[in-house]
Amino acid sequence: MAGKTVTACMLIIGNEILSGRTQDTNLNFLAKALNELGVRLTEARVIPDIEATIVETVNETRAKFDHVFTTGGIGPTHDDITAVCIAKAFGVDVVFHPDIAARIRGRETAPEIMESRLLMARVPQGATLIDNTTGGPQGFQMGNVFVMAGVPMVMQAMVGALTKERLGGTDPMRSRTIGAYLGESEVAKQLGELQAKHPAVDIGSYPFYRKAGYGTNLVIRGTDEAELEVLAKALRALITAMGAEAHDDGV
Amino acid sequence: MAGKTVTACMLIIGNEILSGRTQDTNLNFLAKALNELGVRLTEARVIPDIEATIVETVNETRAKFDHVFTTGGIGPTHDDITAVCIAKAFGVDVVFHPDIAARIRGRETAPEIMESRLLMARVPQGATLIDNTTGGPQGFQMGNVFVMAGVPMVMQAMVGALTKERLGGTDPMRSRTIGAYLGESEVAKQLGELQAKHPAVDIGSYPFYRKAGYGTNLVIRGTDEAELEVLAKALRALITAMGAEAHDDGV
Repeated sequence: MAGKTVTACMLIIGNEILSGRTQDTNLNFLAKALNELGVRLTEARVIPDIEATIVETVNETRAKFDHVFTTGGIGPTHDDITAVCIAKAFGVDVVFHPDIAARIRGRETAPEIMESRLLMARVPQGATLIDNTTGGPQGFQMGNVFVMAGVPMVMQAMVGALTKERLGGTDPMRSRTIGAYLGESEVAKQLGELQAKHPAVDIGSYPFYRKAGYGTNLVIRGTDEAELEVLAKALRALITAMGAEAHDDGV
Repeated sequence: MAGKTVTACMLIIGNEILSGRTQDTNLNFLAKALNELGVRLTEARVIPDIEATIVETVNETRAKFDHVFTTGGIGPTHDDITAVCIAKAFGVDVVFHPDIAARIRGRETAPEIMESRLLMARVPQGATLIDNTTGGPQGFQMGNVFVMAGVPMVMQAMVGALTKERLGGTDPMRSRTIGAYLGESEVAKQLGELQAKHPAVDIGSYPFYRKAGYGTNLVIRGTDEAELEVLAKALRALITAMGAEAHDDGV
């Protein structure tokens, strides 16, 4: 039984992604996790460490999507401004969260360094925590905005702390991939017809070019396993009719 | 001599990125290429293959940024709707571009397959071409919107065809990375002070956690080589003063 689609937007906050210094992998990780949690990642944005941009983007997207997930900008340095920006977006004060502060104080260090580290305990007033099983400072949730670290290991720990119940997720998104050494154009027309017949399933076609030859992976996505099975059969038949071999799980 | 900053927004069009099926690498490639071309990638968005979303996002971003670069959705299947969406965004008709069509017709195939392949010759009226040195169908430019393929090999060929002159690029963006086995918090305060003294340079701090230990890479970015050199010296001195070793090109 399919419920209402729960939508999400991801905000990747960080100059290092836009400058090309760092290859983002958090989007891909979050996308897959949300499929399982029954939440649909509907858009993602990469934005720079600029206060006005972050505040404006958070306010635009939290009104437009059921959930917003941010990564990046919650460390202890001058460019870590996410917590302050979220507080501004919600029009609330920034406060020190005692549970995060306690965790930070648990690891002794020199006073000046501790002062910087404690900046990571800042959250908007009213925020609740997102656990961080690596033992470092927690992330936080403010309204429908989930604020997580940018370092992949830490971000992944925080995503792992999210539950379907907390997100109000519905049916998990399932997919099948069927690949063949066939050009996209050779199946384009029939694919369009199948898509028109099955509007609840998303049919994608992804060409590849490899040493072994060129071909196409066909991907079907939806929440209804039975309908996916019917479509998978139709795709296999289509490929076979074109004189090629259908590969389950793609080529 | 630094000119006015030329800004760019990238639109990654494709359900496969949002579903987690495909790890995007085009953003990172374009970001690095734009650094060299003297254009600043200021924002990126990943949006689904939905006409209304594409049209609205193109119109919002082409008004807001000097350039918009799109990837994805220019193949021959039902989900390849980028050309049609760009035409709608600009309020012009879709036409068949004779040069793209000639290239497609140069590779013989069955009539029904040719019909699908020729869909890749559709461009908005008034578009100019972006060359594709892989020999496949070209991309196109419409106003300040540059429309490229999603397949990385093809996308990279199209980016390679762009010139600084065509984009009106200014000074290339340069960067230095200096790394150390020091926690971010240990240099946080001083970094903030250096950033305040050098507002034209972007100073970023990126923590890492590895088997060899944890540490931080400090990245400085700007167009003025002399200023970068001054800052690099200051960062090396800061790291040494903390009792650690400064590694040029990062750890």
